[in-house]
Amino acid sequence: MEKIKFGPQTLLYPMPAILVGAKVNGKPNFMTAAWCAIAADKPPSISVALREERYTLEGVRENETFSINVPSSDMVKKTDYCGVYSGKKNDKSQIFKTFYGELKTAPLIQECPLNLECKVIHYLDLGSHTLVVGEIIETYISEYCLTDGKADPIKIDPLIYTPGTMKYHRLGEAIGSAFKIGKV
Amino acid sequence: MEKIKFGPQTLLYPMPAILVGAKVNGKPNFMTAAWCAIAADKPPSISVALREERYTLEGVRENETFSINVPSSDMVKKTDYCGVYSGKKNDKSQIFKTFYGELKTAPLIQECPLNLECKVIHYLDLGSHTLVVGEIIETYISEYCLTDGKADPIKIDPLIYTPGTMKYHRLGEAIGSAFKIGKV
Repeated sequence: MEKIKFGPQTLLYPMPAILVGAKVNGKPNFMTAAWCAIAADKPPSISVALREERYTLEGVRENETFSINVPSSDMVKKTDYCGVYSGKKNDKSQIFKTFYGELKTAPLIQECPLNLECKVIHYLDLGSHTLVVGEIIETYISEYCLTDGKADPIKIDPLIYTPGTMKYHRLGEAIGSAFKIGKV
Repeated sequence: MEKIKFGPQTLLYPMPAILVGAKVNGKPNFMTAAWCAIAADKPPSISVALREERYTLEGVRENETFSINVPSSDMVKKTDYCGVYSGKKNDKSQIFKTFYGELKTAPLIQECPLNLECKVIHYLDLGSHTLVVGEIIETYISEYCLTDGKADPIKIDPLIYTPGTMKYHRLGEAIGSAFKIGKV
């Protein structure tokens, strides 16, 4: 199995395709991001890499709050729209039905099956991007996405982003249980 | 569409199921992680959240290097094994065929279609976890995973982890092109 040296690349599979929400200049704004991951469980926190010039980042800095919204695959067009057009030029406040939670300033997307409401705890300047780390203050899930009281990824039907080909994919079939299939 | 408040939860979809490699006490060691994302593109960097007591973290701190290895779905058992058993008790140095690259101390997994070789640039203490941020020094890709000189996610066939159900999934069908399907 021959290995090719590819130079330093920002490749990872899979990546999520999530919508980062922030209130900017008094209005909800949403941008698409793929560089996002859970960062800790005590306190529950999440990181997202935002380019310094992003309009969304203005709102994050102003309110010190943001949201991470997981769209389902049927939201692919609107999700991509939010990655193509900047809130600097396009008002994105009316694309989704939004609501506010505990923090009052982090707009959440009603249509997204899963929403994390976050309060900034760190900014890490990494050059091209600032890694924003937020404590997850509350989680909202659409009732139809629960099975036996637990989040059900099949019902959530999340969007997946693949770099290289730059495509959106759906989640494929389950092939095993974690912390189980590898036990000997 | 009723929303349920779920309390602060570390839920995000999808998550990768990657193998973090480090040389610990002179031997390659690998642990499974899902809390990993690209963090910046200049310099190309990646973050991974590691619990403080992880054996792998000892090696990361000792050498200031690590690897991120993306397994394909047929590696599900070995990948899960590396998440279930700690290198403190189980020698995981012989599970995979390993190689070293530029940095000399970050073990890379030959069988994994994609490998990122990383040098630590930040440690961010987040409580339960340390967020390790590494600059990507080199990327290795298995030749059979290229299409027209680009990384092909279908050929890579990455493992996907879903919290809640705690399952491994495969990548599903492509449903659109990013930066295109949302253009108006």
